[in-house]
Amino acid sequence: MWMQRELTLEPRLRGFHLVTREIVSALPELERLSIGLLHLLLLHTSASLTLNENASPDVRADFEAWFDQAVPERSTIWTHTIEGPDDMPAHIKSALLGASLTLPVRQGRLALGTWQGIYLCEHRDRGGRRALIATAWGE
Amino acid sequence: MWMQRELTLEPRLRGFHLVTREIVSALPELERLSIGLLHLLLLHTSASLTLNENASPDVRADFEAWFDQAVPERSTIWTHTIEGPDDMPAHIKSALLGASLTLPVRQGRLALGTWQGIYLCEHRDRGGRRALIATAWGE
Amino acid sequence: MWMQRELTLEPRLRGFHLVTREIVSALPELERLSIGLLHLLLLHTSASLTLNENASPDVRADFEAWFDQAVPERSTIWTHTIEGPDDMPAHIKSALLGASLTLPVRQGRLALGTWQGIYLCEHRDRGGRRALIATAWGE
Repeated sequence: MWMQRELTLEPRLRGFHLVTREIVSALPELERLSIGLLHLLLLHTSASLTLNENASPDVRADFEAWFDQAVPERSTIWTHTIEGPDDMPAHIKSALLGASLTLPVRQGRLALGTWQGIYLCEHRDRGGRRALIATAWGE
Repeated sequence: MWMQRELTLEPRLRGFHLVTREIVSALPELERLSIGLLHLLLLHTSASLTLNENASPDVRADFEAWFDQAVPERSTIWTHTIEGPDDMPAHIKSALLGASLTLPVRQGRLALGTWQGIYLCEHRDRGGRRALIATAWGE
Repeated sequence: MWMQRELTLEPRLRGFHLVTREIVSALPELERLSIGLLHLLLLHTSASLTLNENASPDVRADFEAWFDQAVPERSTIWTHTIEGPDDMPAHIKSALLGASLTLPVRQGRLALGTWQGIYLCEHRDRGGRRALIATAWGE
């Protein structure tokens, strides 16, 4: 079985956001897979997807704090500043975290760890709606 | 052909560890694939999987040194400190390196470069046993 | 349908390079997939693959600047210096960005975002030709 569909995620503030529920509820076909995989590709270069702790909002705030410090807007190294001070750091953060995820599906559900959730990492001040392509396959 | 199974890796000290042999020996089904892929997802948010040099232990020690310096335990930015000083840095390191790998299988064996090995990156002081889901598919 | 082939990318200077066209033109079989995926694994531990902005060369120069600053050659933390000052930083950069990509295929073409391109990230001063294994599958 193969399924491929484009999804759009709601606009979110700059920061790290749990989107597991939003993504899974848009993909009812996952229930038809006993063994398979789900691949997600965010179609952007200034946002990213990652897996991390799905419980404490503190963790997500600390992600934003660390990435802002590690890839600062105010830096003399940036030459690509024409799209705003948040643009070039957003590209670097997106590459560090990655724009795609591949996740196992088991008995019709994503097989994640108890504490794992999917983060949409919004690195722009005004990123707007974010599109992704979801592809699921298996048996 | 599809195969999906949960594996448990032996507990390891904080640091970067070669686990190629431990993983491959737990997956004899790979021998039945002439062309395919193996997907590994670590079911944790404070450890990670990556590919890197499989020869010199110095390289793995330098990984630990760089990541500890880049994501320090002693920092005023952390607010999520309730699970210990090694917890929040572990989450960041896990996201930077990633919790999953997808690897090609050719003629029944992982098709890696000569110098590539699978690292389990243990970011906690006492991470204990680590579980992962292995999914292989192909023909 | 399954396809698996080893490709060799032309040698490139240290830095970040757009290679989408070079890769796609080496894989005419993609045209036979209506829905599928392409997996790429670079067979090296001192170079990497990532997706990012495919337009401005400034962006790619800023990638090089940020990674050189974040993972400096001159640092007292390195013990693995036998292969040259650019070697150990190259291993770290490769792990941060990752050696593989999985990309959706739709109607015979890579389904990337408008601004997304595949970067070969060459972290060595003289990396030479870089080999990768391309695996495509789908229907």
